[in-house]
Formats: sequence, C-alpha cells, structure tokens
Amino acid sequence: MSTEQTEAHVETLSESECIELLATHHIGRLAVVLKDRPLIFPVNYALGDRIVAIRTADGTKLAAARNAHVAFEIDGYDVDAGHGWSVLVQGVAYEITDAVDRQSELARRLRIEPLAPGSYDRWLGIHPVAITGRRFQA
Amino acid sequence: MSTEQTEAHVETLSESECIELLATHHIGRLAVVLKDRPLIFPVNYALGDRIVAIRTADGTKLAAARNAHVAFEIDGYDVDAGHGWSVLVQGVAYEITDAVDRQSELARRLRIEPLAPGSYDRWLGIHPVAITGRRFQA
Repeated sequence: MSTEQTEAHVETLSESECIELLATHHIGRLAVVLKDRPLIFPVNYALGDRIVAIRTADGTKLAAARNAHVAFEIDGYDVDAGHGWSVLVQGVAYEITDAVDRQSELARRLRIEPLAPGSYDRWLGIHPVAITGRRFQA
Repeated sequence: MSTEQTEAHVETLSESECIELLATHHIGRLAVVLKDRPLIFPVNYALGDRIVAIRTADGTKLAAARNAHVAFEIDGYDVDAGHGWSVLVQGVAYEITDAVDRQSELARRLRIEPLAPGSYDRWLGIHPVAITGRRFQA
C-alpha cells in the first residue's frame, strides 16, 4: 500500500498534516467513475470544515460525482531536490449548490477562483471517508 | 464537456499536441476503480509508442489497474499568468512486466526514474482508447 512506511525515506502523513496541505493548496484532481470507468478532472478547490468544495458546471463531472464515491488528490514535487508529497481524499460527493445545512452554507462561502474560464454555478462538496498522504525524499 | 471549446480562451488540444505534452512530462496521476470506487495514484511515467508506461510494484495499484479501464492525467499551471493545460488518457492497462510483444519490450526500455523510494519491479502499460486535452488562458 502506498500509504504505509515501506522505506526509510517514505513517510506516512498524519491526517492533520494532510488537512494542512489541503488547506494551503488550491488545485487538485477529482476522479469519478462513469460507466465503470475512471475519469480524472483537474479542479480548483477549497477546504471547508472537513469538506473539499469544488465549483463546477452542469455536465459529466457533476453528474458522475453527485451522490457517488469519488477520489480527490493533490501533490507537490521538487524534482531537483528529489522530494515530494501527495494527499488522497476518498469520500462521497454531494451537490451542495442549494443545500441549506450549515456545513454546505459555509463551504459555499469559501473563496474558489477557478483558473479556467467557464461557468461555475454549481457546487460539489466531498465528505471524506479517508484522508491519507505520504511524503518522500529520494 | 471539458474538452469542448466553451469559451474564447479555452482551447481543445489536438491529439498530437496531447502526445507532445505526454512525451515531455514525467509525472502524472493514474486513476483506477477498486470495488466501484475511484482511487488516484501519482506516478512517474514515460510515453512509448502510444503506450503510457509506468513502473510499479505488486500491490493495490497494479491489481486494480491490470486488465482494467484506467484514466491517466497530466497537467500544468502558471497561476500568476492565469494559464494552464491538462491531458487525459483513457485506456486499458495491462501488466507488461513479462510481455514479449514488441510494443511492450520497447516500453520496458523507456527510462523511468521514480522519484519516491521503493520497489518498482513491475510494469504497467496503458493502451489509450482516447487522448484528449485542453489549454486555457484566464
């Protein structure tokens, strides 16, 4: 398993370290399953109160993610220095565009500035089931 | 759909542009489906003759990817300049550790230097079904 300590220089991150990394980055990748096949979408996101919030539009990504198990990943590398890290969130995504629960309302107040032009009038919130990560030094 | 031209500043990449980007980068993310749920693994890779070659070890990633539909994604951003791009490969992954066909033999000769320490004695080859990408300028 990638999250276990298999070498002296591969370190499993604690959940709080993963959350710190999630809170301080803004671009990740969302994986969904569509007709039994995985798809990956790069997305801008923000971390709310244990929710990964994503702004999106009506389309494949929203339809495949809504009420479904998804994966969300962020990572960072310094190839020259030979070190890197990655965080994986496994969870269930809900559309929170109109949700009136407090957690969703807070998530919708997060500042997410999508880099790519387009429509972003819908919101997804990923409720984590597991948050894992690792850091390595080559 | 993310690959359609929806705005003046979002551009669909041609397959040859996607292949050029795949050929000149070395870190991507592999998505697999395990028990109906998606997982994402950051991986080092190299592009062979239309095969995305990945070195890995025995484990979850190999077991879930082998003989299955997978997705593979690379991307790049310049947040300050407001531009970015992404390429998505959808395809079927095969274990090519011992495969004797010419395409697999060539793939295994590719230079892949995994950043993270660990065992990398097994090879996966992703045979693309679709290669799509886009570039945007905010």
